[in-house]
Amino acid sequence: MNKKNKVAIIMGSKSDWGTVKKAQDQLKELDINVDTFVYSAHRTPQETLDFARNAKSNGYKVIIAAAGMAAHLAGFMAAWTTLPIVGLPLKSKQLDGVDALLSSVQMPPGVPVAVVGIDSSVNAALYAAEILALEDPEIAQKLEAKRKADSQKVIDTVLD
Amino acid sequence: MNKKNKVAIIMGSKSDWGTVKKAQDQLKELDINVDTFVYSAHRTPQETLDFARNAKSNGYKVIIAAAGMAAHLAGFMAAWTTLPIVGLPLKSKQLDGVDALLSSVQMPPGVPVAVVGIDSSVNAALYAAEILALEDPEIAQKLEAKRKADSQKVIDTVLD
Amino acid sequence: MNKKNKVAIIMGSKSDWGTVKKAQDQLKELDINVDTFVYSAHRTPQETLDFARNAKSNGYKVIIAAAGMAAHLAGFMAAWTTLPIVGLPLKSKQLDGVDALLSSVQMPPGVPVAVVGIDSSVNAALYAAEILALEDPEIAQKLEAKRKADSQKVIDTVLD
Amino acid sequence: MNKKNKVAIIMGSKSDWGTVKKAQDQLKELDINVDTFVYSAHRTPQETLDFARNAKSNGYKVIIAAAGMAAHLAGFMAAWTTLPIVGLPLKSKQLDGVDALLSSVQMPPGVPVAVVGIDSSVNAALYAAEILALEDPEIAQKLEAKRKADSQKVIDTVLD
Amino acid sequence: MNKKNKVAIIMGSKSDWGTVKKAQDQLKELDINVDTFVYSAHRTPQETLDFARNAKSNGYKVIIAAAGMAAHLAGFMAAWTTLPIVGLPLKSKQLDGVDALLSSVQMPPGVPVAVVGIDSSVNAALYAAEILALEDPEIAQKLEAKRKADSQKVIDTVLD
Amino acid sequence: MNKKNKVAIIMGSKSDWGTVKKAQDQLKELDINVDTFVYSAHRTPQETLDFARNAKSNGYKVIIAAAGMAAHLAGFMAAWTTLPIVGLPLKSKQLDGVDALLSSVQMPPGVPVAVVGIDSSVNAALYAAEILALEDPEIAQKLEAKRKADSQKVIDTVLD
Amino acid sequence: MNKKNKVAIIMGSKSDWGTVKKAQDQLKELDINVDTFVYSAHRTPQETLDFARNAKSNGYKVIIAAAGMAAHLAGFMAAWTTLPIVGLPLKSKQLDGVDALLSSVQMPPGVPVAVVGIDSSVNAALYAAEILALEDPEIAQKLEAKRKADSQKVIDTVLD
Amino acid sequence: MNKKNKVAIIMGSKSDWGTVKKAQDQLKELDINVDTFVYSAHRTPQETLDFARNAKSNGYKVIIAAAGMAAHLAGFMAAWTTLPIVGLPLKSKQLDGVDALLSSVQMPPGVPVAVVGIDSSVNAALYAAEILALEDPEIAQKLEAKRKADSQKVIDTVLD
Repeated sequence: MNKKNKVAIIMGSKSDWGTVKKAQDQLKELDINVDTFVYSAHRTPQETLDFARNAKSNGYKVIIAAAGMAAHLAGFMAAWTTLPIVGLPLKSKQLDGVDALLSSVQMPPGVPVAVVGIDSSVNAALYAAEILALEDPEIAQKLEAKRKADSQKVIDTVLD
Repeated sequence: MNKKNKVAIIMGSKSDWGTVKKAQDQLKELDINVDTFVYSAHRTPQETLDFARNAKSNGYKVIIAAAGMAAHLAGFMAAWTTLPIVGLPLKSKQLDGVDALLSSVQMPPGVPVAVVGIDSSVNAALYAAEILALEDPEIAQKLEAKRKADSQKVIDTVLD
Repeated sequence: MNKKNKVAIIMGSKSDWGTVKKAQDQLKELDINVDTFVYSAHRTPQETLDFARNAKSNGYKVIIAAAGMAAHLAGFMAAWTTLPIVGLPLKSKQLDGVDALLSSVQMPPGVPVAVVGIDSSVNAALYAAEILALEDPEIAQKLEAKRKADSQKVIDTVLD
Repeated sequence: MNKKNKVAIIMGSKSDWGTVKKAQDQLKELDINVDTFVYSAHRTPQETLDFARNAKSNGYKVIIAAAGMAAHLAGFMAAWTTLPIVGLPLKSKQLDGVDALLSSVQMPPGVPVAVVGIDSSVNAALYAAEILALEDPEIAQKLEAKRKADSQKVIDTVLD
Repeated sequence: MNKKNKVAIIMGSKSDWGTVKKAQDQLKELDINVDTFVYSAHRTPQETLDFARNAKSNGYKVIIAAAGMAAHLAGFMAAWTTLPIVGLPLKSKQLDGVDALLSSVQMPPGVPVAVVGIDSSVNAALYAAEILALEDPEIAQKLEAKRKADSQKVIDTVLD
Repeated sequence: MNKKNKVAIIMGSKSDWGTVKKAQDQLKELDINVDTFVYSAHRTPQETLDFARNAKSNGYKVIIAAAGMAAHLAGFMAAWTTLPIVGLPLKSKQLDGVDALLSSVQMPPGVPVAVVGIDSSVNAALYAAEILALEDPEIAQKLEAKRKADSQKVIDTVLD
Repeated sequence: MNKKNKVAIIMGSKSDWGTVKKAQDQLKELDINVDTFVYSAHRTPQETLDFARNAKSNGYKVIIAAAGMAAHLAGFMAAWTTLPIVGLPLKSKQLDGVDALLSSVQMPPGVPVAVVGIDSSVNAALYAAEILALEDPEIAQKLEAKRKADSQKVIDTVLD
Repeated sequence: MNKKNKVAIIMGSKSDWGTVKKAQDQLKELDINVDTFVYSAHRTPQETLDFARNAKSNGYKVIIAAAGMAAHLAGFMAAWTTLPIVGLPLKSKQLDGVDALLSSVQMPPGVPVAVVGIDSSVNAALYAAEILALEDPEIAQKLEAKRKADSQKVIDTVLD
């Protein structure tokens, strides 16, 4: 495993672990070093900002921020670092995730967050991997291989 | 003017001043002590949290937080204080304010924000005044008087 | 229990009790005096307005108004009192709560309601508590303690 | 003009007069007796409920209730009378009228309001007329005639 | 039962019977003469328009039109009669009923439909009854009695 | 011009002519025989259904039905013919066209309408042309040529 | 079975087969030649475009493209062929199908897609059949017969 | 200017240039090498896929894909490359950009796109810069400096 390229997954609440774990699994499947933490923009703001502020010097390259409802987590972290943040909006019980999507993506000019689809944990992981792959040919190769395998699976589909 | 009861209005960007000034005007009309600041959850996070953390000891009773788009300001401040925060979601050019409304109101359990209508600066001010009026009979009287005057205006309406 | 600071929870229909009870429980956990009533803006308008009109003289400081669908309850009560009303919009079977949210929050200028998230009973209670805490150091202390406990719970999370 | 069949138009704010006047004009065009009032569910609740409670004994048959934003007016009046209420939701500056539509139409079981389209003043008037026409052959005849005239206008359209 | 005042309930598909039956039950509870038919604006247009065109001469006073999805039924019938049509939009599996609501309520000027809430069968029935009650004191009395009973039920609520 | 392949454009109101004319222009540009009529599902239902019922025997192959708000026109015509109907939902003043889109597209099983984008007159015309092109090589050729020309225009773009 | 008129059904993922199979079944019921393939605009773009580019010369007349979420499939194929594409937007777990509907229908001018309702597999099939029926009297007859049978089923409904 | 780190901006139509140019300007302000092209997923699919397929070997690190309506551009390019794609959804005349947002962000698992806010050209550029900054200390420094300058501008705001 390449130790130089670390991804952090931050999620706002342990109750999201069922969905978010798929991001961790995907990164591990690509042999990418990943650390996952529960930090809440609202319940542990100091810990969250400390993490964001030190993420770069601690060797993280990309941060995946997963949150639901008024999903401020991605934007909150973006305020304290210029590392690329991948927002992962999560569906809540009331509004189908549209609240989390809008709260994550509609950032003001100057502090960008880029967001994947609602509950799209796998894509959050792959996007982080694509960023790392720019300087890491091994990850690039694995991503290309995964694309081919995914493609082949579609081609091999048999309808019954 | 009663110096004991101070309200703070925080807005995310000076460009919102046209709408937000009506909250300040309304508070001044009720002789309530009000300070207005531009603090951004994303562009000046340290200053914003310092303000929120010290707001109580600096004599503020209520904070009105006005922001548009992914309006994190109210929730951001709520994370650092147990003072009541009145969220004032602002309409942006793209999504009619529904992004700001959802980003402000859908807070996770434990860190409440209470939100008035989109661009409803006057109501944000009146709500802050209602809170202060609980312990300040003069404000209470002025609010009652304003209600009566508003009511009379409706009653006196002449349609042409 | 401090008898001076009473909160009223009004809900439009007994069928909402499952969700609304969490607000009552939260207030009791903070040793706040709370009375809960079922009053409907549409089915018992006279009783509802009588309650609202007399709430202040009956010693209530804050009213939590919980309703679904065309949730008029919070605004209806706000028309008869200058006490702060916390609107608690409830999810219905058809529209994910967006009808209750808009019906509660989009009040006309002059008669404010401040609204928490859809089904956010706990936050409605905490917001009421924050208002009371302005003049009640014991509640203030309990709110701070709860914040710390909530924060610690996040910090202590173990992912498996 | 038949004096027995009176329609009342109530609107929440004089600022809606531009749109609502079309309902009055349509009713007058059908020689229907119409009185228009500005009553606000939130700013003049007592006057509004007094009107609703006495509407039947004052000879009104149908009430058109026009309001924007958290449009409680129609439902508020429905709570005090069993006269048929026609809700006329008005577009506001922020949310395209969807707030007024949902606030008007999503009434709880037992207290019905029936709603026409956003800003559809003419249809509100025609619907009131259709109700009156059930017992008034002259109005029925005029409605049929208007339908034919409208139809003919479409048939006579020349595209250039 | 008063035979002079007949209400027709038309629904677009038998699959809606579970929801629509509540309208029939409510009308029968008020001793109102009601006939229920399945007619589809799209699958049996000729039968539907024949019904609408002859409804008045067949003694119907009000038509309740219940449909889901692109709910054209209410508007379709309104095109062939000047009887008051009560639109009852039904929730479908995909869009929470918002498609049926908009398809029913947003009628063009000249051909009005008035719409109750999504799946609000009881209110559709009560609204029809309110129209009939204008000329039928017995129905008026029953509606008032039902209101009082509903009100009493709320007042008698015991929370456990 | 090939006289065998006629397209009909029906629009609900002359006020939509500004938008709908682009469909006519596009068809003429492709030398396709087109007739445009104003027929309203609600104001001229008999004329509209007569047209739909006879469209096939009158030599029409495709019908473009353009309407706004509760846009029933496409579905209304589909009920009387098995010719392919292309729904063209038009933006109204209140709801950005989403009402027309849902009213057109959410047809019940058995009576299909296929819908192009909001105000997409050109695409409605091109889609009709694509259907005709299945049996008319000249139209097919013109469509291919237009695609190439459109493509070339994009390739030749110069940014300044 | 008429071999000249082939319809292709393409779906983005085998997981949609449950819904999409109904389109295939409907086409077979009408004795229309149909081939179904799983091709993804994103996972097998080369195979998908190859199919679209060759669809005409391979004898296909209409392509039904079924996809959910950011449903690009219909538009993707439309870019490579001037055959009529019927977009079939599928409901996903998060957004009730509104994402697929908008992604399918809001095509830019020049490259049309016509879209049926969310999950409306049967209508997608019938619309394809309507196109084929223009030149195939047998299909036309079967469509008319199906309409009559559907109509009769509605007429024969017995409510219990 | 560092020639090693190239960003490509692709937009679907020249008409978007007014909005998209701000992304180019922002990148140039950071001395980042940027090439801007007009390529349409639907009008020039071959050119667009050729560009995407060769982007990596042509030295591009990040692609910003700007499109409105059924905004397939970002997803279309993502299908042909594992370079990180930043989706920039653009507001159209009809639907406030929500169509472009959903069409861009709701990608299926395996082919990620990360999306910034509607019309947020500056943030698209800054996000691309953040990715490049991971390996380019000069860009990192400039981003930090811009953050500080933006922050200072907020702090220096004077309200009048």
